[in-house]
Amino acid sequence: MYGWTVKQWIDFHYQSTPDDSLKLLVQLVKDQSTKDAAWISLASIDQLKHQWDFLQSKSNKLDLPLYGVPVAIKDNIDVKGFKTTAACPSYAYDPLQDATTVRLLRDAGAIIIGKTNLDQFATGLVGTRSPYGITPNTFNSKYVSGGSSAGSASVVARGVVPLSLGTDTAGSGRVPAALNNLIGLKPTKGIFSCSGVVPACKSLDCVSIFALNLKDAQLAFNLMAHPDGSNDEFSRPSPSNPLLKFKSNPNILIPLDLLWHGESENPKLYETAVDHFDKLGANLVSKSIAPLLDLAKCLYEGPWVAERYAAMKDFYKSNPPAKDLDPTVTKIIKGGESISAATAFDFEYKRQGILQKVNVLLKDIDVIIVPTAPLTPTIDQVSNEPILINSHQGTYTNFVNLADMSALAIPAGFRNSDGLPFGITLLSHKYNDYALLDLASRYLKVYHDKLSVPQFYGCLKNKKITADDNNDLIPLTQLPNSVLKNSVNLAVVGAHLKGFQLHWQLEAVNATFLKSTTTSSNYKLYALPKTGPVAKPGLRRVDADGSKITIEIYSVPSENFGKFISFVPEPLGIGSVELADGSWCKSFICEEVGYNLKGTVDITSFGGWKNYQNHLSEKDSKKLKPF
Amino acid sequence: MYGWTVKQWIDFHYQSTPDDSLKLLVQLVKDQSTKDAAWISLASIDQLKHQWDFLQSKSNKLDLPLYGVPVAIKDNIDVKGFKTTAACPSYAYDPLQDATTVRLLRDAGAIIIGKTNLDQFATGLVGTRSPYGITPNTFNSKYVSGGSSAGSASVVARGVVPLSLGTDTAGSGRVPAALNNLIGLKPTKGIFSCSGVVPACKSLDCVSIFALNLKDAQLAFNLMAHPDGSNDEFSRPSPSNPLLKFKSNPNILIPLDLLWHGESENPKLYETAVDHFDKLGANLVSKSIAPLLDLAKCLYEGPWVAERYAAMKDFYKSNPPAKDLDPTVTKIIKGGESISAATAFDFEYKRQGILQKVNVLLKDIDVIIVPTAPLTPTIDQVSNEPILINSHQGTYTNFVNLADMSALAIPAGFRNSDGLPFGITLLSHKYNDYALLDLASRYLKVYHDKLSVPQFYGCLKNKKITADDNNDLIPLTQLPNSVLKNSVNLAVVGAHLKGFQLHWQLEAVNATFLKSTTTSSNYKLYALPKTGPVAKPGLRRVDADGSKITIEIYSVPSENFGKFISFVPEPLGIGSVELADGSWCKSFICEEVGYNLKGTVDITSFGGWKNYQNHLSEKDSKKLKPF
Repeated sequence: MYGWTVKQWIDFHYQSTPDDSLKLLVQLVKDQSTKDAAWISLASIDQLKHQWDFLQSKSNKLDLPLYGVPVAIKDNIDVKGFKTTAACPSYAYDPLQDATTVRLLRDAGAIIIGKTNLDQFATGLVGTRSPYGITPNTFNSKYVSGGSSAGSASVVARGVVPLSLGTDTAGSGRVPAALNNLIGLKPTKGIFSCSGVVPACKSLDCVSIFALNLKDAQLAFNLMAHPDGSNDEFSRPSPSNPLLKFKSNPNILIPLDLLWHGESENPKLYETAVDHFDKLGANLVSKSIAPLLDLAKCLYEGPWVAERYAAMKDFYKSNPPAKDLDPTVTKIIKGGESISAATAFDFEYKRQGILQKVNVLLKDIDVIIVPTAPLTPTIDQVSNEPILINSHQGTYTNFVNLADMSALAIPAGFRNSDGLPFGITLLSHKYNDYALLDLASRYLKVYHDKLSVPQFYGCLKNKKITADDNNDLIPLTQLPNSVLKNSVNLAVVGAHLKGFQLHWQLEAVNATFLKSTTTSSNYKLYALPKTGPVAKPGLRRVDADGSKITIEIYSVPSENFGKFISFVPEPLGIGSVELADGSWCKSFICEEVGYNLKGTVDITSFGGWKNYQNHLSEKDSKKLKPF
Repeated sequence: MYGWTVKQWIDFHYQSTPDDSLKLLVQLVKDQSTKDAAWISLASIDQLKHQWDFLQSKSNKLDLPLYGVPVAIKDNIDVKGFKTTAACPSYAYDPLQDATTVRLLRDAGAIIIGKTNLDQFATGLVGTRSPYGITPNTFNSKYVSGGSSAGSASVVARGVVPLSLGTDTAGSGRVPAALNNLIGLKPTKGIFSCSGVVPACKSLDCVSIFALNLKDAQLAFNLMAHPDGSNDEFSRPSPSNPLLKFKSNPNILIPLDLLWHGESENPKLYETAVDHFDKLGANLVSKSIAPLLDLAKCLYEGPWVAERYAAMKDFYKSNPPAKDLDPTVTKIIKGGESISAATAFDFEYKRQGILQKVNVLLKDIDVIIVPTAPLTPTIDQVSNEPILINSHQGTYTNFVNLADMSALAIPAGFRNSDGLPFGITLLSHKYNDYALLDLASRYLKVYHDKLSVPQFYGCLKNKKITADDNNDLIPLTQLPNSVLKNSVNLAVVGAHLKGFQLHWQLEAVNATFLKSTTTSSNYKLYALPKTGPVAKPGLRRVDADGSKITIEIYSVPSENFGKFISFVPEPLGIGSVELADGSWCKSFICEEVGYNLKGTVDITSFGGWKNYQNHLSEKDSKKLKPF
């Protein structure tokens, strides 16, 4: 069961009796111990049984996308039945209800097996700032796990659970992913509810996902992307048509001015990863990201630490025992007390000014690739320089939520010197979360057989990634919560079909392929005389002597349909077509004047444009053989 | 020249020699004096001549939309050649360049004749807080003018200039408009650049417009709505397709819980105004606006006053002479020093929480109508209770920029007791600035002959509003900066024509009428057999025996085209049509199978659907006459 993906857990449950399933979960929890610094608390057997029985009581349980999947939750996110400590014993409280994100996972069938360790009050990127102990790196215990979601990364990397939740204000969901060879998804701010999360910087906080593969991260994202305005002040609904894919050759910014703070090995791994994207057909653009690096400095030089103080001031005023307080964290947070509102506004003006420059910088850019964290530090290095190393690690994470971006941390190979993993983060504009997953899938799939791309996730060296499923994504039409809500289904007949010259126009309006089918048998198809570089057919509805014509159906975001229709020249138009199943859908149609033109050929007998074009190329190739 | 609108000034210049024009402008400035508390500084004759000569040097001067129009600028907005004082003598400085908004007006031909008085540092809604004197109300000098843009309202209300700029953080561009019977336009935050404006609350500040009629306000808005990201941190571009009109029966929220703070006459005027909107066909919805009133309290109880301190702290630290400092303003602004960043963030969380409730409250609401200011105070009343009355006046203005709304203050009649004007403000979601102007135009036009609606603007009792131009708007297609940028031009042929059953579908997608015209002579028109409640025609392109068919062309915002095409049933579709002038445009087209149906009638000879329908109704009416 160690290293199972979501699918493998569900498959196991489908093939087992409920009792056997419970037995396995119990065994899993019994294997764990809170002596393992990754855990702060574990489910009791009763708690486990209670969760399982409740799941069994659900009539639709077998349809639940996380049916019986064990999940771990960072201990600054409320789970009913578990204390919430935020890694501070005297701060602990019993939450009255689940955090919204936890409820959404439980509603989907997940079983919460424990709460994981973190840098106290989620203040750190190292995983060493907790009275519950230092969470070691899963590859080498002399190295840090990264933080602040240290435990959540550790238990996924060791395959204990396929999914865990972290939180990510300034990188806490990405740095531990990089240092433990995992997928770390930081959603666009506001898309996951932060209701039931102990605030760090409430205006920047995000719940994040650790997973062993893209598919599980995509599923968890789809399940938790849910507006929660009545519980979370900063909740925002996802757009009804989020960007699902970047164009085939996305513009990717590769920063000119990367700072590595003395690290020499990771830059090579970074360059290798960038080289892969180059070969993927991306359009690489080298530019300085100075405005973003300026923004990163604002996070710790500016007032946002006062948000941490605003969140913790009453607790500190209750004079908690010193032994419970991590000294570095306490010093940082208490530093927020003296900052004035005037300074807070001055820095907000500075941020807005920088964001104007960022808008210009990223105007035609789809993605930025940054090292997730420049360094791979040992525990000793961090204890010698707790503030400096932590700040270096935030170089490429601190600015992301201040600039309201989406981010996906993915594995990018292993260091020769010590075998530890390195990771890169794909950054994009807000709401491009699905498009980042798609780009990562293309990157990991195309290169999964090259040594430079991990053959395994986490530290599960013996669990080879198989090309068939581990880097794929769930087809968009099969996601539990539809991402194609505000769209127009459009049937295409000719030059827009896959592989034909105008297919790019569908990509340009973010259309999503739904299915191939045929029209009803009331149609004729004509090859229209060529009036330009692209040959096109004309579809004609008839009352008799018609036939079924092959078509492809795409979902076009409604707000992009105006752009698409401007591509459609006369005599073609967009009307409606009757499908084989008798339903109707928008489709290319052709004016009578079009197929009445001299030179028009009735190609109905070929049943479709692709067959007709194959016929023409066969005819041409026969002509070429003189003997 | 007193009371002239923009058009009247331009007409005068067109019919005069440049010298006569300059003479009139010089006369206008000579009539003014800084003893009039509305003015802080006036253009010297040389300055005036310099501006005029520079204007004359422009080759396209006669095409400039504000050619030679005199304008006044609030003295917290930089105008090169004039000191900027913000109504504080020792704060005064010589700006190196115009504020962006001023530059845009000058580029359009405006002549700046002077800088107007204000509540010091734009901190007040009363117009009594200035070492340069109290600006009296233009109807009765015992009453306040309202602030903080007191002088800018006064000089427009007295007809000295047709346009002036104010600023509006929490009502300073609306309250003086109400108290002086003017149009006061507060744009959506960020659409007008605040570069070159002395900051009050930089995150909330807006430059605003005072005008004698809607048309001039619309023109000035169109000229100044310009992204300025490199100079103004909070600059935001307008959407490429802003909402231009609300539907014909907009949902208008009438607050249940209006607070009048002891005022008894203004509520009646408010009810009369609301009654007019009822008769206009609006759908009035009574609801509490408690969340918005809570938000208003945040402005003065919360940290935003620290923005004023952040802006002025260095100046106060220079120990300016006490005689230059308005005591009330100084006390308010210095109060911002002690507020902590933690409190600032706490209130930001509170604001975001309230805004979630506001989103729910306004989900299906197009507009809210509020009294611009509850009270019509005398100067004595304000001097007795400077803070209390000022805070009452902000009841319906304070929350607007905190909630990121658009606002238009319009006149709403006169009080019987003292003859002073009363005003209402139309509030809407951000970016609905044009739609508010359109709604106001419908309100003022429909009722301009009823006594309840002002027969004159400002205090120009003898300058009757003529129905023909004063409440009209400039046709959208004639605005200097296009508002129809990202749109698809669509020709409609039948049921979508003005006055026909499906015209509402064009309104539902915010389409804008462009023109009536005809197709080229290559078309036939058929009355299709009725398949539902609405009769429809089918347009057919032919190579011979065609005719010109009458059509109407609309501009449909591109992002709404997907919604529109979902309205279009088979056998109709959207293709392209050749117009009379040989150009092509998207249009309704019809599949052959449509006009081949039994019962189809060739109506080409009628030249269009409207003629054919008239023919049918004439036929029907003849049938009804038995004798």
